[in-house]
Amino acid sequence: MRLTLEEIAKIAGVSKATVSRVINDVPSGVGEETRKHVQSVLSELHYSNDSFMHSMRSKSLALILPDITNPFFADIARAVTRKAITENYVVILVETEFSEEKEQEYISKLISKKVDGIILVPSGRACTDAHFLPEKYHVPMVLLDRKLDGAHSYAGIYSDNEYVAFGCCERLIKSGAREIVFISGPLNVSTSTERMDGYKDALIHYEIPFDHRKVRIGNYTVESGYQAILELEKENISYSAVLAANDLMALGALRALKEFSYKIPEEKQIIGFDNIDFSKYCEPSLSTVQQPSIQMGSQAVETLLKLIGGKKVSQTIRLQPKILYRQTTK
Amino acid sequence: MRLTLEEIAKIAGVSKATVSRVINDVPSGVGEETRKHVQSVLSELHYSNDSFMHSMRSKSLALILPDITNPFFADIARAVTRKAITENYVVILVETEFSEEKEQEYISKLISKKVDGIILVPSGRACTDAHFLPEKYHVPMVLLDRKLDGAHSYAGIYSDNEYVAFGCCERLIKSGAREIVFISGPLNVSTSTERMDGYKDALIHYEIPFDHRKVRIGNYTVESGYQAILELEKENISYSAVLAANDLMALGALRALKEFSYKIPEEKQIIGFDNIDFSKYCEPSLSTVQQPSIQMGSQAVETLLKLIGGKKVSQTIRLQPKILYRQTTK
Repeated sequence: MRLTLEEIAKIAGVSKATVSRVINDVPSGVGEETRKHVQSVLSELHYSNDSFMHSMRSKSLALILPDITNPFFADIARAVTRKAITENYVVILVETEFSEEKEQEYISKLISKKVDGIILVPSGRACTDAHFLPEKYHVPMVLLDRKLDGAHSYAGIYSDNEYVAFGCCERLIKSGAREIVFISGPLNVSTSTERMDGYKDALIHYEIPFDHRKVRIGNYTVESGYQAILELEKENISYSAVLAANDLMALGALRALKEFSYKIPEEKQIIGFDNIDFSKYCEPSLSTVQQPSIQMGSQAVETLLKLIGGKKVSQTIRLQPKILYRQTTK
Repeated sequence: MRLTLEEIAKIAGVSKATVSRVINDVPSGVGEETRKHVQSVLSELHYSNDSFMHSMRSKSLALILPDITNPFFADIARAVTRKAITENYVVILVETEFSEEKEQEYISKLISKKVDGIILVPSGRACTDAHFLPEKYHVPMVLLDRKLDGAHSYAGIYSDNEYVAFGCCERLIKSGAREIVFISGPLNVSTSTERMDGYKDALIHYEIPFDHRKVRIGNYTVESGYQAILELEKENISYSAVLAANDLMALGALRALKEFSYKIPEEKQIIGFDNIDFSKYCEPSLSTVQQPSIQMGSQAVETLLKLIGGKKVSQTIRLQPKILYRQTTK
């Protein structure tokens, strides 16, 4: 909450009426020196008449996300805070650490703390009672990046995962790779299944039989990408390309492929997802998908503020990622 | 702010007196069904009698940092939010993007929004008027990771940069490297100059003349580490080891050293700072300094809450980093 008239008066050591007169530019009743003093206090605290009159309470929105140390989510957080602050909102950051239980607890806590709106990147795709609390208590909520099954009433901002995963596979197939491994993220997350769908669609489109042994489920960490390759090698599975559902897993896979002395991209091609800073600098540099993370974060704030203002919004906004071809593809 | 008695009453569709009776367990005056209904509303919003009575307003602290996409700061943000939430505080995240101007603006905005306390990772080391506003308006503030010149009244939580930089150089020298390059961060940041001091102290201690051409000033990005090596090579400067003031610059330097086909660690050793996730998986894996980021974030919250509670705190807490030797050192 912002300081009240009373509190400003106390800080400035004058009466409430005096503060009110200065704020409202009432010319009488306040000596020149006092007026200047109150104005300096107000300006020091960045009070303009406008902001003071129209926003007595602080405006805040909550950003709930699974993992702030994942560079993709850090980009999202940057975009959200950057956009929010230009609209005079502060952003409360909450990290669920992929726990659906924590997610539920925080949603309800934030509502009880009267946050003005919520941007939620869900931990999983299962919808729980807590996910309907914002609607019930009239707190606008926007979903970001990941879908929630059955939560049709919330607007959402998503990246077109299926389309771009199809595009990655298509490129690999056209370059001659027909045995493509897909290292997926956890299947309780919509982005994972969408990328998997794009992968499967491409196989069908190019009449390549689906082989379940070529799909490995990781958990979006470097280690899980590394382990996926170790397993494939141990099981003697033949493959000529790897599509990983994020860069951290792709980098783990890349490291393992190099340990097995494969020539990249001649023997094994690899494409990641997210275009994290380091993907450009690893060796060979990683082909990957540039997520529209900045637009996603910014659009989520825009949509949320429209909802807070009682305006209509598009139910689903789908932003287009872009494939960046570097040295791990032919 | 939390919902008031009045607002809860409105949501539950009962009188204020009824809500108060239910919260305070007054046995009379409320029918069993109504009591259950109010209790279900309260529990849905996670109100316990205790939290409701003692914390009518929301408790929030602000974390102001330069760059949320830097993995070290993301770790700090994780530690701060994790610790704060267990103490029933929400964390307002503000990113200054290394702008001292934005930092000043945000400090004063946050004070006017009546945040309960501030954890500040300063953009630079120069102290401005805005840095004294928290003190003036009695908003507790704790400095984290980076010092502010002249801001003696604020408690601070720091990593012992000088000590550990000395240790890194000592190890390099003992392994036979006497020509050590230091890729520093910007010199307007205390952590940079402290690491530089540790580097210089080690040279003095081991009687190695200081050569200003072996010090390069980067900006903590991969690109600036990469460029530093390119410059050294272009200028034909002889060196056998590189100490970089963070992992991103070390990874950039590593990439450049590999492009020049140097054998690592035989011809060039390299040590970074921060132990970001990827440093373990790059090739060769990077020797680096494990910052006590989790303890730093957690300790900052602890110190801040003590100050909010009017308790005494240690003025300076210095936590010990640890050197991790991997494949880029002998």
